[in-house]
Amino acid sequence: MREFKPASLPTIKRLPSYLHVIENAREEGKTYISGTVIADELELEPIQVRKDLAVTGIIGKPRIGFPVDELIDAINTFLDWNTRHAAIIVGAGHLGSALMGYAEFPRHGLYIVAAFDADPAKIGGTINGVPIYSIQELTPKLNDTGARLAVLAVPSPFAQEVADHLVESGITAIWNFTNVKIKVPADVVVQKEDLSSGYAVLSVKLRTMETAAAR
Amino acid sequence: MREFKPASLPTIKRLPSYLHVIENAREEGKTYISGTVIADELELEPIQVRKDLAVTGIIGKPRIGFPVDELIDAINTFLDWNTRHAAIIVGAGHLGSALMGYAEFPRHGLYIVAAFDADPAKIGGTINGVPIYSIQELTPKLNDTGARLAVLAVPSPFAQEVADHLVESGITAIWNFTNVKIKVPADVVVQKEDLSSGYAVLSVKLRTMETAAAR
Repeated sequence: MREFKPASLPTIKRLPSYLHVIENAREEGKTYISGTVIADELELEPIQVRKDLAVTGIIGKPRIGFPVDELIDAINTFLDWNTRHAAIIVGAGHLGSALMGYAEFPRHGLYIVAAFDADPAKIGGTINGVPIYSIQELTPKLNDTGARLAVLAVPSPFAQEVADHLVESGITAIWNFTNVKIKVPADVVVQKEDLSSGYAVLSVKLRTMETAAAR
Repeated sequence: MREFKPASLPTIKRLPSYLHVIENAREEGKTYISGTVIADELELEPIQVRKDLAVTGIIGKPRIGFPVDELIDAINTFLDWNTRHAAIIVGAGHLGSALMGYAEFPRHGLYIVAAFDADPAKIGGTINGVPIYSIQELTPKLNDTGARLAVLAVPSPFAQEVADHLVESGITAIWNFTNVKIKVPADVVVQKEDLSSGYAVLSVKLRTMETAAAR
């Protein structure tokens, strides 16, 4: 089994943006890209970029940079994005529906194969091409689709109850878009999405700019 | 004018999760909270928590911890979340609609006062209590509401065109939910939201767990 280098959370979070920049370079016909070019594009320090990309095992060459094809493949391998992952969404409200249509996901191997909701008006229909089932059908549909990853987009009061149901039905990874910190067994992976983090960054940028302008 | 300590992006991104934990402690009647308790709750190293919280200017006391009320106020002041920020949303699709109903925003001083769309079926209505206007009404409505912050939730092909329109109309901060890197003048602040970052973290957690299970 292949060994991967350990990486910090901030490094892992930056890898998709590197991938985006490097894929654009490939579309422009480039075969090499320098760390400095990537750094400029993303407004990061070049040393940070080189340190982050080192986790993929690909080292840039002085004055030439990183080989584009190899680096794209290495980032995707590191993230396990070369593998197809079937996922379900629980909660077909506005947020769940938006996620069903998120075009980036299939590009990263993530396929939303089914969604579940309690609203009879939605059950039996499709949203952004994804079929909507009753939450009662969760266990058989998971068996049919083989999905082990669930996106949790239900109203917060239902988050824990639905998470328990997901775990009982064989889900091993939950991407949690509610604002509840759900409790799951140790062998279930959870990633909590928090839009407030992005707003915090925007707020500080705005405050800094206003402070500068007032001087 | 008050001076703030500089903070790294990862630190700023973690501040909302600290705030959440500390507010919960206050609701439970606690007046002090230790860095170790915060660290345990968020699965971070205690040294990281203490370093991050130092940017607020509040220092914990040995064996007692941080004063809860003071720390909440200091984080909110650092993020400028004690101030009311009026914002608009452009694009009243699923994502825009979900953001109009995001309950965390008003708790952080962010009020969505209007949304804009090109769809005649939506214009004149409300979604999650937010009135929807024609994009043609952008400039007068910005003058009415005083909003200087815009959430960009339009389909990606329209991102740059709408961003240009926003800047011309006096918007100074754009929270970009499209996957386009928009170009704006240097005095306009942009924060790009990328769901792929969260999925990258989930992917690596899942790969790591599967590798461990296969051993």
